Amino acid sequence: MSKPHILLTNDDGIFAPGLYALYESLSAIADVTVVAPDSEKSAVGHAITITDPLRVMPFEKLGKFFGHAVNGTPADCVKIAYFALLDRKPDMVISGINYGSNTGINVIYSGTVSAATEGTILGIPSFAVSLTTFKDADFTYAAKFTAKLVPLVLANSLPKGTFLNVNVPNVPESQIRGVAVTRMGMVAYDDKFDKRIDPRNRVYYWLTGSKLECNEGEAVDDGAIEKNMVSITPIHYDLTNHQILDELKKWQIAS
Amino acid sequence: MSKPHILLTNDDGIFAPGLYALYESLSAIADVTVVAPDSEKSAVGHAITITDPLRVMPFEKLGKFFGHAVNGTPADCVKIAYFALLDRKPDMVISGINYGSNTGINVIYSGTVSAATEGTILGIPSFAVSLTTFKDADFTYAAKFTAKLVPLVLANSLPKGTFLNVNVPNVPESQIRGVAVTRMGMVAYDDKFDKRIDPRNRVYYWLTGSKLECNEGEAVDDGAIEKNMVSITPIHYDLTNHQILDELKKWQIAS
Repeated sequence: MSKPHILLTNDDGIFAPGLYALYESLSAIADVTVVAPDSEKSAVGHAITITDPLRVMPFEKLGKFFGHAVNGTPADCVKIAYFALLDRKPDMVISGINYGSNTGINVIYSGTVSAATEGTILGIPSFAVSLTTFKDADFTYAAKFTAKLVPLVLANSLPKGTFLNVNVPNVPESQIRGVAVTRMGMVAYDDKFDKRIDPRNRVYYWLTGSKLECNEGEAVDDGAIEKNMVSITPIHYDLTNHQILDELKKWQIAS
Repeated sequence: MSKPHILLTNDDGIFAPGLYALYESLSAIADVTVVAPDSEKSAVGHAITITDPLRVMPFEKLGKFFGHAVNGTPADCVKIAYFALLDRKPDMVISGINYGSNTGINVIYSGTVSAATEGTILGIPSFAVSLTTFKDADFTYAAKFTAKLVPLVLANSLPKGTFLNVNVPNVPESQIRGVAVTRMGMVAYDDKFDKRIDPRNRVYYWLTGSKLECNEGEAVDDGAIEKNMVSITPIHYDLTNHQILDELKKWQIAS
């Protein structure tokens, strides 16, 4: 039986250690093609490049071809791989391992997640994987867990238009306390803008801010992570709030 | 009674005629503050700028101050307006009038819609407005309709986390056939990449593609537009597919 063909991408860029850790882990069970941004594309949301041309360059690692580097976003990478670069269509799209969590409302800003969305739009089983830390990252367990998840996702097909958003705590495997199926948390951020003066005496602003506390326990992505559980959230890209369609019709809005 | 304070933004940039048409129309019923990107930011998705500083410049029109031009995305504009620029918090965020439709899966790539999402995250009633054309745009009716919608949205409060995505056909008012409350269409695009050779003999790619036909009638955004109806879709940013949470738990994924 031939191995599945996995298209691997990310938003941290083709240089990122999280991408490489996942590449190594997946290569044992799949034929892996890497198509990833040529530089960091964090917080690009679901951007696609329409006003500029895209270029694709071969990228080497340890003296041999590793993947295709694209001057675009994660969503661009999935599109251009599918429509222009790959002869063999992928059986799965995986995006990650992201450096930093993609939980709560962060999901809507996430380039990592947008690549999995794009794979899903193309009808390919997809998921996004993130390691929930910004320091002392150890991708070992996250890469191993992801490789275990691949046959499960291929065997248990997800509904049309749905994919998985996976977040893995940055702790050794021995401290992982299981897997939680979660909702995306809806807690907002306490955003702030630092107002600063540049060397030429001009004002500039820099976005800072921290996430407000999540008190919903392991039913929600951040809550599961706090308990050292792997969080798996089923995500879809139908943004309609179906529940209020009837209510809205009662407004009887006149043209 | 004091007029409501509306924060107006867009993704076509502060120069865009659709923004100005809406500014004029809203100024009759509200105090309007414009905070918009200093250049076109189409298809930026829900991007926020975290790796670079943001700068804000005063922008004049017809010899007087018109608004704040920001070197960022629509989502950046809403955040920086709320947290750093405005003394009086807005009662409403409106994004538009976009030049071109924001319907179907395009909604997930839309900078216009992302600004309304950002307003909603901040707890402010919000909506996005687009004119469904890429040529011979006449914003007159769309601007007039939007001003009519403002008191309705303020009076009939939407559920937490929900906003309206409004698309207006590019026809004279006399040809408008009413208002449809719609779902976001799920029809994919027939994407293609043009492979071209640049003057220095290097390959580049350019995304093209057309929307596949929508056969769902006026229950769906594009279907309503085809019938010359204004389409109003309730959108939320909870991306969880709640319906399959229980199914996914049955997978019993081991850590």
